[in-house]
Amino acid sequence: MSLTNHQFRLAARPVGLPKRSDWNYVEEPVRDPGPGEVLIKTLYLSLDPAMRGWMNEGRSYVAPVGIGDVMRAGGAGRVIASQNPAFAVGDHVTGILGAQEYALFNADAAKGLTKVDPKLVPLPVYVGALGLTGLTAYFGLLEVGQIKTGDTVVISGAAGATGMVAGQIAKIKGCRAVGIAGGPDKCGYLTKELGFDAAIDYKNENVAEALRKHCPNGVNVYFDNVGGEILDTVLAQLARSARVVICGAISQYNNTTPIKGPSNYLALLISSSRMEGFIVFNYAARYGEAAREMAGWMKAGKLKSKEDIVEGFQTFPDTLLKLFRGDYFGKLMIKVAEDCN
Amino acid sequence: MSLTNHQFRLAARPVGLPKRSDWNYVEEPVRDPGPGEVLIKTLYLSLDPAMRGWMNEGRSYVAPVGIGDVMRAGGAGRVIASQNPAFAVGDHVTGILGAQEYALFNADAAKGLTKVDPKLVPLPVYVGALGLTGLTAYFGLLEVGQIKTGDTVVISGAAGATGMVAGQIAKIKGCRAVGIAGGPDKCGYLTKELGFDAAIDYKNENVAEALRKHCPNGVNVYFDNVGGEILDTVLAQLARSARVVICGAISQYNNTTPIKGPSNYLALLISSSRMEGFIVFNYAARYGEAAREMAGWMKAGKLKSKEDIVEGFQTFPDTLLKLFRGDYFGKLMIKVAEDCN
Repeated sequence: MSLTNHQFRLAARPVGLPKRSDWNYVEEPVRDPGPGEVLIKTLYLSLDPAMRGWMNEGRSYVAPVGIGDVMRAGGAGRVIASQNPAFAVGDHVTGILGAQEYALFNADAAKGLTKVDPKLVPLPVYVGALGLTGLTAYFGLLEVGQIKTGDTVVISGAAGATGMVAGQIAKIKGCRAVGIAGGPDKCGYLTKELGFDAAIDYKNENVAEALRKHCPNGVNVYFDNVGGEILDTVLAQLARSARVVICGAISQYNNTTPIKGPSNYLALLISSSRMEGFIVFNYAARYGEAAREMAGWMKAGKLKSKEDIVEGFQTFPDTLLKLFRGDYFGKLMIKVAEDCN
Repeated sequence: MSLTNHQFRLAARPVGLPKRSDWNYVEEPVRDPGPGEVLIKTLYLSLDPAMRGWMNEGRSYVAPVGIGDVMRAGGAGRVIASQNPAFAVGDHVTGILGAQEYALFNADAAKGLTKVDPKLVPLPVYVGALGLTGLTAYFGLLEVGQIKTGDTVVISGAAGATGMVAGQIAKIKGCRAVGIAGGPDKCGYLTKELGFDAAIDYKNENVAEALRKHCPNGVNVYFDNVGGEILDTVLAQLARSARVVICGAISQYNNTTPIKGPSNYLALLISSSRMEGFIVFNYAARYGEAAREMAGWMKAGKLKSKEDIVEGFQTFPDTLLKLFRGDYFGKLMIKVAEDCN
């Protein structure tokens, strides 16, 4: 083989929204796999809010991406060469492929790859609802949020990849699901297509008033993807012994000033409630079991998947910004290549 | 009997620190108890940070004190007249007596009184370490904080009534106890008299640096009485799966601007930790059991009690302010009357 890899490497730590100059677009030859190694051709790259955090220096749940390193990114691809007995040419896998067209994994790193079958569900679904995004919703609601039948569950960023799955799982578990999203199209989709009981358009509605209307007995579980003002607004309407699941805070990730902490955090005291953060990686040992259950829901028509797929690897720096502008709908990903040799 | 009662009634809802003009000092005759009623002479009045919250309008875990009403306050007293078979003249009780020299309870309200025996421990201890203050520390650490042997437990407001008991319970349970308090006297008392492993003087030390020194493996449990900057500083040093117990936020109670929310709340996400509020009233059914266990620790010399007793009912408006200035030490209370007829 004589293949050329293209990569986006981190050139500088962004201040605020990542700029084009924070990236280096790099070309380098693809090396043939050595003993134990497997070479993946990237087909889809996952774009996730968490990536913004990985670009920052400092303490977090994973090491920051180093300056000069290929940007960390999840994705799906096909094995095109292998000296690893666990992977055959033509296998499809998901994993942390990085923002690059080809990814070479050594024997140890290859243990982080998951084989998937695109004949069962389309490959993008393994990056979205059946991937880390869906697993995040699953463990966040069931393990951290401890949802129970009859709970009123509010989800922010509800038209995002994790939020959509979270709302549908809430319905599957017999809860009332109320989504918060931006714009009538997204809100209509949540209630009409995904079965949410209500959707609040934060761009055009008073969120506090709408919450009072749609959650007359208060909020039992709040699955928060956005932070900021909306977090404060929901805190003010917690039911007793409520659970606030901190999944993310996309409104705050590009701040150049300190993060806005929730002024209403004493609502936790007043209502004897908890706010708890989590990382989906905590549940890695149970991914298989969860993905099987979710695949069953999907087959039964209870869980729908929606992807927002942008064509072209070169769009990576711009497509990433869609996450922070909110102008996407479902699981955002880039189609890097056709699934053929 | 022909007794005269004096009361502090709420005249206006304070803006910021309560002013003298927010109170009415009222004189009225004491009525003899009717059927089922019991008349208590107030001996000690408890002064607690939570009282500031009760003075505000708006949603909380109990109704606000009404304008014109006697200020809600805990205390200890002696039965001086009774038409209630459960109480005899000379009995000592604790309960929500109100900011007044005499309190008349009807049969229903009298169920909220607890009989105590000042021959076993002095009456002020029933208002402090063996009262709601101590119970707050007990349930906050054991039930909400879920402390385990070997945990590093950090307590703010550690020289306050609840903080002192919390640190001693942490030690009894085999934890490392690190207190945060203002000034060398308080800090010295915590380590020398109460057995805290370390004390951080927030008025004279860099709290972040001191925490790194005294909590080299991070903070497993943070029992927060103060909020504000110190909460943010501790959040930045949480260990994985830490529990932040929100007991109070005395630094924020007199704000005239919005409360400062914890900017570092995303530390909960990074460290998969939780922040949980509670109200001691949640555990009312278990007060007896807890008080018996604490009395046992006291008898065994493992739990010390310290009261800061101010003489004179008329000092009530000023003495209350000591809570917010921090110029008190131990359980703050007012001695209203001598324990004699």
